[in-house]
Amino acid sequence: MIYMRIPILKLHNYLLISIQTEIDDNTAIQFQEDLLNKIHQSGSSGVVIDLTSVDIIDSFIAKVLGDVVTMSDLMGAKVVLTGIQPAVAMTLIDLGIHMKNVPTALDLEQGLIKLYQELGE
Amino acid sequence: MIYMRIPILKLHNYLLISIQTEIDDNTAIQFQEDLLNKIHQSGSSGVVIDLTSVDIIDSFIAKVLGDVVTMSDLMGAKVVLTGIQPAVAMTLIDLGIHMKNVPTALDLEQGLIKLYQELGE
Repeated sequence: MIYMRIPILKLHNYLLISIQTEIDDNTAIQFQEDLLNKIHQSGSSGVVIDLTSVDIIDSFIAKVLGDVVTMSDLMGAKVVLTGIQPAVAMTLIDLGIHMKNVPTALDLEQGLIKLYQELGE
Repeated sequence: MIYMRIPILKLHNYLLISIQTEIDDNTAIQFQEDLLNKIHQSGSSGVVIDLTSVDIIDSFIAKVLGDVVTMSDLMGAKVVLTGIQPAVAMTLIDLGIHMKNVPTALDLEQGLIKLYQELGE
């Protein structure tokens, strides 16, 4: 079975992820596992997940995304979400995934600036 | 038909790509097209392609990689390759893809530093 793996880039103390394809359920689950492992391995203090190229998400992917933010936080890594499009924002709120306390930003650059601020580094 | 698209991250004036899965021929061709389009759109002056997670490459992928470096250069964007593993280096040289004048570095951070130096920014 063919499934994708979303690349996770390590840059200094942060992890950068850009989701640019429509992802299926297996890819989302794999991503969750990969990200948590990478946080553990690398000891990263911050994560930027860029959703600029994501037009729509379904309830399952939205749930996984909400979970991965909470899980990363639990592990001590701050997550910033960037580039959330209108339809994605609507889906998240409709599903009750409020991403409270999750900083957001317009794009990757702004997301990194937000991390610097949040982490006071 | 399912094929992957390799995400291309834009950070300031540079594009960052990390290839972390075994890629098939279609994905490689799609990547070539996507990267050249993204250079054109974004007016990026530098590109870092990180191959840390690539254990082996076949001759087709090696050729596409060699081509994409030359093509990017032609468009005015400097490419730095990072994290080339022994087997990948051997394949490239065996195939006569010498990547002359292509700067390389150990990892993404070092690759970005190399770009700063090469571009004098």
